[in-house]
Amino acid sequence: ANVRAIVMLDTAKYLQKGNLPSAVTNRDLNDGTNFRRARFGIDGKLFKDFDYALIYEFGGSGAEDAGHIQEAWAQYTAFKPWRIKIGAFEPNIGLAAAVSTSQMPMMERPGPAEVARNVAAGDTRSALQVTGNGLWGEGDAGIATRWFASAAITGNTVGVINSTGSATAQPNDEQTGVIGRLAIAPFSSTNWQAHLGVNAQLATQPNDAGSAANPRYPIQLRDRPELRVDGTRLVDTGAIDAKTASVYGAEAGLSVQNFLIESEYFKYKIDRRLTGTTPLRNPDFSGWYVQGVWVLTGENRPYNPAEGRFDAPKQNYNFNPAAGAWGAFELAARYSDLDLNYNAGSAGTAAAPDAIRGGEQKISSVGLNWYLNPDIRFMFDYLHVDVNRFNAAGVQVGQSYNALALRSQLTF
Amino acid sequence: ANVRAIVMLDTAKYLQKGNLPSAVTNRDLNDGTNFRRARFGIDGKLFKDFDYALIYEFGGSGAEDAGHIQEAWAQYTAFKPWRIKIGAFEPNIGLAAAVSTSQMPMMERPGPAEVARNVAAGDTRSALQVTGNGLWGEGDAGIATRWFASAAITGNTVGVINSTGSATAQPNDEQTGVIGRLAIAPFSSTNWQAHLGVNAQLATQPNDAGSAANPRYPIQLRDRPELRVDGTRLVDTGAIDAKTASVYGAEAGLSVQNFLIESEYFKYKIDRRLTGTTPLRNPDFSGWYVQGVWVLTGENRPYNPAEGRFDAPKQNYNFNPAAGAWGAFELAARYSDLDLNYNAGSAGTAAAPDAIRGGEQKISSVGLNWYLNPDIRFMFDYLHVDVNRFNAAGVQVGQSYNALALRSQLTF
Amino acid sequence: ANVRAIVMLDTAKYLQKGNLPSAVTNRDLNDGTNFRRARFGIDGKLFKDFDYALIYEFGGSGAEDAGHIQEAWAQYTAFKPWRIKIGAFEPNIGLAAAVSTSQMPMMERPGPAEVARNVAAGDTRSALQVTGNGLWGEGDAGIATRWFASAAITGNTVGVINSTGSATAQPNDEQTGVIGRLAIAPFSSTNWQAHLGVNAQLATQPNDAGSAANPRYPIQLRDRPELRVDGTRLVDTGAIDAKTASVYGAEAGLSVQNFLIESEYFKYKIDRRLTGTTPLRNPDFSGWYVQGVWVLTGENRPYNPAEGRFDAPKQNYNFNPAAGAWGAFELAARYSDLDLNYNAGSAGTAAAPDAIRGGEQKISSVGLNWYLNPDIRFMFDYLHVDVNRFNAAGVQVGQSYNALALRSQLTF
Repeated sequence: ANVRAIVMLDTAKYLQKGNLPSAVTNRDLNDGTNFRRARFGIDGKLFKDFDYALIYEFGGSGAEDAGHIQEAWAQYTAFKPWRIKIGAFEPNIGLAAAVSTSQMPMMERPGPAEVARNVAAGDTRSALQVTGNGLWGEGDAGIATRWFASAAITGNTVGVINSTGSATAQPNDEQTGVIGRLAIAPFSSTNWQAHLGVNAQLATQPNDAGSAANPRYPIQLRDRPELRVDGTRLVDTGAIDAKTASVYGAEAGLSVQNFLIESEYFKYKIDRRLTGTTPLRNPDFSGWYVQGVWVLTGENRPYNPAEGRFDAPKQNYNFNPAAGAWGAFELAARYSDLDLNYNAGSAGTAAAPDAIRGGEQKISSVGLNWYLNPDIRFMFDYLHVDVNRFNAAGVQVGQSYNALALRSQLTF
Repeated sequence: ANVRAIVMLDTAKYLQKGNLPSAVTNRDLNDGTNFRRARFGIDGKLFKDFDYALIYEFGGSGAEDAGHIQEAWAQYTAFKPWRIKIGAFEPNIGLAAAVSTSQMPMMERPGPAEVARNVAAGDTRSALQVTGNGLWGEGDAGIATRWFASAAITGNTVGVINSTGSATAQPNDEQTGVIGRLAIAPFSSTNWQAHLGVNAQLATQPNDAGSAANPRYPIQLRDRPELRVDGTRLVDTGAIDAKTASVYGAEAGLSVQNFLIESEYFKYKIDRRLTGTTPLRNPDFSGWYVQGVWVLTGENRPYNPAEGRFDAPKQNYNFNPAAGAWGAFELAARYSDLDLNYNAGSAGTAAAPDAIRGGEQKISSVGLNWYLNPDIRFMFDYLHVDVNRFNAAGVQVGQSYNALALRSQLTF
Repeated sequence: ANVRAIVMLDTAKYLQKGNLPSAVTNRDLNDGTNFRRARFGIDGKLFKDFDYALIYEFGGSGAEDAGHIQEAWAQYTAFKPWRIKIGAFEPNIGLAAAVSTSQMPMMERPGPAEVARNVAAGDTRSALQVTGNGLWGEGDAGIATRWFASAAITGNTVGVINSTGSATAQPNDEQTGVIGRLAIAPFSSTNWQAHLGVNAQLATQPNDAGSAANPRYPIQLRDRPELRVDGTRLVDTGAIDAKTASVYGAEAGLSVQNFLIESEYFKYKIDRRLTGTTPLRNPDFSGWYVQGVWVLTGENRPYNPAEGRFDAPKQNYNFNPAAGAWGAFELAARYSDLDLNYNAGSAGTAAAPDAIRGGEQKISSVGLNWYLNPDIRFMFDYLHVDVNRFNAAGVQVGQSYNALALRSQLTF
C-alpha cells in the first residue's frame, strides 16, 4: 500500500464593491483561509490484476467537512484494454473533469464543467465503470491517434456532513444514471498533441425525496464562482422536480510544446415532472469555457492517454536556491460562461411560471503556478467574476467583483 | 504497523407490496447503495508484549457516517494464557457477535445476536477485558477440547455523528456494565469441530440522561432487518426507563468438513425504574436463530480458538480465469426470530400500561458468497422479512417483503 | 512517511457535593470515559529541505468529535537557523503550550495557559510561522545559553463538528492575528537547565459574524477545569464584541537533575467595540500557575531547545516484570488560578454595565505518571477545583469539588 495525500490550503481576499444595492445578496464574502482538500489514504495493487484506492477527505468548500469517504474502489485490469472499476470514485466524464485536482492549471475547475460533472458523475459517486484506451497507427515519425472510451452506471454520492452540521436525509430511492465519454487524440511524435471528445450523462431517476416532499425528485444545477474560500454559490437553478436530467458535452484541446489550449461546451437539459395541472416547458441551460497554459520554464503538459486528459508539467529542476534552481513556473488564463437562466425575462418583471432565474456567471481569470518540486506547488489566481441574476420580482441580485487567491499545495 | 482496511459497498432492492394499508410504516424503503463499512487504520505489536489497533470507520447503516473511532485499544499478552485489553473495541460476547464482519456467512449478523450485543457490548464500547483460551487433552487421533473464557467491564460507546447530522448528547453519567462468555469446543483431528457456549451481560447502570429527561435511564432494544441499505429499524421497544438490563445467551455450533451449522438463543430482561405511582411489571424479550453454511468448493470454515468462533474459509485457488481458477463459492441459509413484544395484547385493542409493542421480526434468508481471493469477496443475499407489530391503538404497522442485496467487499 | 498516533482514553469520577444550592450550575458532571485524543496520521521529509505532517483527530473533549484536521503543514528548513512553516498547526506560544500533549506532566494544560493560547494560537490554527533557535557560548564545563524565537501570522481554526452535532457557521471574514515568543535558556553541562521567556498575542481582527449578529466580532475567554471527561466549561466570559484582543505572558522554568519547576503568568486584554451609545471600559483578566515534577526513578525531563520546552523523561528501563523492570514513575503537582472576572461586584448585587462575571477558577492537583515504555503511559490525577462565579443577579453559581482521573495513553 502506498500512502497518498492531497492537501490544499487556500487563502483569499474578495474585492467587492462597497456601495452594492441592498437587494444584492452575498455582499460580504468571507476573506480568510480554507483547506479546500485534505485527503489522506492509500492505493495499491492486489493479486496482480486488481488495483484499489481508499482515500478519505477532511477538507471542504468554504469550511472543512468532517472526515468522509472520497474514493473507495477496486479495479480489475486483466481484461485488456478494458478496466472494470466498482466503488465510489469520480467517473471519467470530461476533459476538465478528468484532470486530477492536484494537476489543474487553475485553482478550480471551470464552472460549466463543474456543473456538468455533478449531474450524474462527480466526487464520491457510487459507480460501475468500464474504461479502455489504445493506439491506432504506431507511425514512427508520422501521425498516430490515441483513442479513449468509458461508460458507467452511476448511483448516489456518499453522504457528507459539512462543518455547519448540515446533512442530506436518506432518500426513499437513490438516483441512478448512465454516463459515457469518447475521445480521439491525434499526435505527431513530440511536437503536438490534439484531443477531440464528446461526453453525455443521463440521470434516469433522480433521488426520491419521498411522497411528502416538494419537489419529490429534485435536480439542481449550481456552482461556486471558481474560488471556494467562501462556500457560497452565486448561480443556482434551485431544485427542479424532474423525470430525468441530461448533459451533453464537446471537448477540444491542443498542446504544442509548452503551450496548451483547451475548451469545452455543455448543454444541460431537464425533463420536468408534471406536478400541477398545466405542463411547464422543459428548461435547458448551457455553458462553455476556453483556457490556455504557457509553461514559462519550457516543460510541457503531457497527455495522459489512460484518462484522456492533459497532466501537470514534470519539472526539469526542483527548488534549490543554493544550486540556482527555482523549480518550474506556469501561466494560465481562462474565460468561462455559465448560463443557468431559462426564460428569465427582463428586469423589473415577475418571473414567468416556467422561468428558471438561476443567473449567468462569467469569469475571467489568470493564474501563476510555481512548482517547487513534484510534491509542492503554489498557485496565485486573480479572478474577475460577473454575475447577472434576477430574483423572482426581477430585481438584480448579482454583482461583479475581483478576487485574489493563493493555494499552498502538498501532494504525494 | 500494518495498514488495515475493510470496505463493504452494499447495493439493495426492496421488493415491497404496492397495496400496503396506510397505517403501515416504512412503505418505501430506500433502494440504492451504501458503504456499510469503510474502515481504515493500523494494527501491530509494541515492545514484544503489547498488541494494539487503531481503526477508523467512515461507513454506516443507511448512509455513511462521518469518520469516527471504530477500534482504539492496547492489549498485554505476556500473562499467558490470559490477555488484558483496554480501550474501545467490540468485546467478545457471543458466537455470531465474535465473528469478524469480513468473515460472516451472510451480509448482516442475525437480528437476535445484534440486539443482544448492543446492550453492554457491541461496536466502539469502552472496555477492560480479560480473555483466555487453551486446550484440554492434546490427544493425537482422539478427541480433545478447546476452552475459551472472557470477562469485561464495559462503559459507554464512542459518540458517532451519522450523515443525517444527528448525535447523542453527553450523558450526566455514562453506562457501566459487566459481561462474560464461556465456551468449550470438542473436536476430533480434522473431521469435526463442535462448539458449546454461554454468555451473559448486565448493564448495571444505564446512561443517565439527566434529571429533566424522560426516560432518565433509557434502555432500548431494536434492530434493522438484517440488511442496512435502508437504515430504518422495523422492530423497536422504544426507550424504557431501567434500573438494569441483562441478556443471557446459549450457543451451539458444529462443523463437519465443508458444512457448518450454528444456533444461538437469547433472553433479554429489563428491570424497570419506578417512575409513576404504580409499579409496572418487568418486561422480557427473546430471540433465536439457526444458520447453515456449505462451502461448495470444498474448503471448511476453520475454528478460531482465540476468539471462540468459526472463520471464513481459506480458499484453495484465487480468481484467475486464464488458469481456469474461479475462487471459492459458499452457500448459506438462515432463519431468525426476534420477538420484542411484551404483553402486546391483540389487534384492535389499546396497549396495556406495561405493554411493550416492539414487534416480532422473522427473517428467512439465503446467500451465495464468492471469494475471488483473500482480499475480495462478493455476497448475494435474498431475504424474506416478516414483521408483526401493533401501534398503540392495536393497528398492524408491520409488513412482509422480500429484498435482494449485493455486497462488494475489499479487506486487508 | 512515518505513521503517527496519539490515543488517550480518559476515565473520571467527579466527587461533587450532594447538597449544592439549586442556583449552582452543572451539579452532576459526567462520570465515565472519553477519548480525549485519538490522532492518526503521518509525518516525514520531502526533497531533503521540507518537513511535513498530516495528522487527523477523532477524539474530543466531553465526547468524541467527528474526524477532522489536527495538523496539516509543510516546513522549509534550509534557511538555518530559521524554519518557515505554513499550514494548520499549533503555533509555538508559551512554555506549557509548547509541550507535546503526549509529554505533559499532568493530564491537561494549566487553565491560564489554555485560555491564553486559544486567543490567536491553539490547535488547528492556520498560520505562517518563522522559528529559530541557537546557542550562545558553547562553554565545555561552564555556563552556556540557548535562545529561541518565533513569530507567526495566524488566521482561523479548522471547523470541527463535535459529537453533539454543533458547528460554527462560516464567518463573513475570518480572524487574523500576530503572535511571538522569545526565550533564553542558560544551562550548566548536565546539572541544571533554566528557562526564561516572554510571549504575546494580538488578534488584530476577530471573526466577523456578519452585520446581523450580536456580538458581531466576538471574543470569548473560557476553559474546562483541567479535566475533560465532562466537556462543560465552568468559567466563561461570554462573547464580548471586540476590536482587538491581546495576551501577554511571562515564563520561567528550572530543571535540576530529576526535579523540574515551571511557572507562567498571563494578562488577557480586550479592546471593546462601541456598540451602544455609552462606551464601556475595556476589561482585562489574568491567570497564573506553578507546577513541579519529580521523576521518582531518577530520569530527568530534558530541555528541547528547538521548541523551548521541557519534554517527558526518557526512561531507563521498559516494563518487563520477568526482568524486574517496571518502567519509570513520576510525581507532579500544580496550582493554577484563572480569574475571568472584571468589575464583578459583590454577591447579591446586579452586574454593572461593564462587568464580566466570567468567574475565578482555582485548581490544586497532584498526579502520578507511569511510563511502561516509550509508547505507553498511564496517568493518575487528583484535582481539587474551586470555582467562584456570580450570575447576573449576583447569586453564586460556582462550586468546589474533587475529581479522580485515569488516562491510558498510547503514542508513536
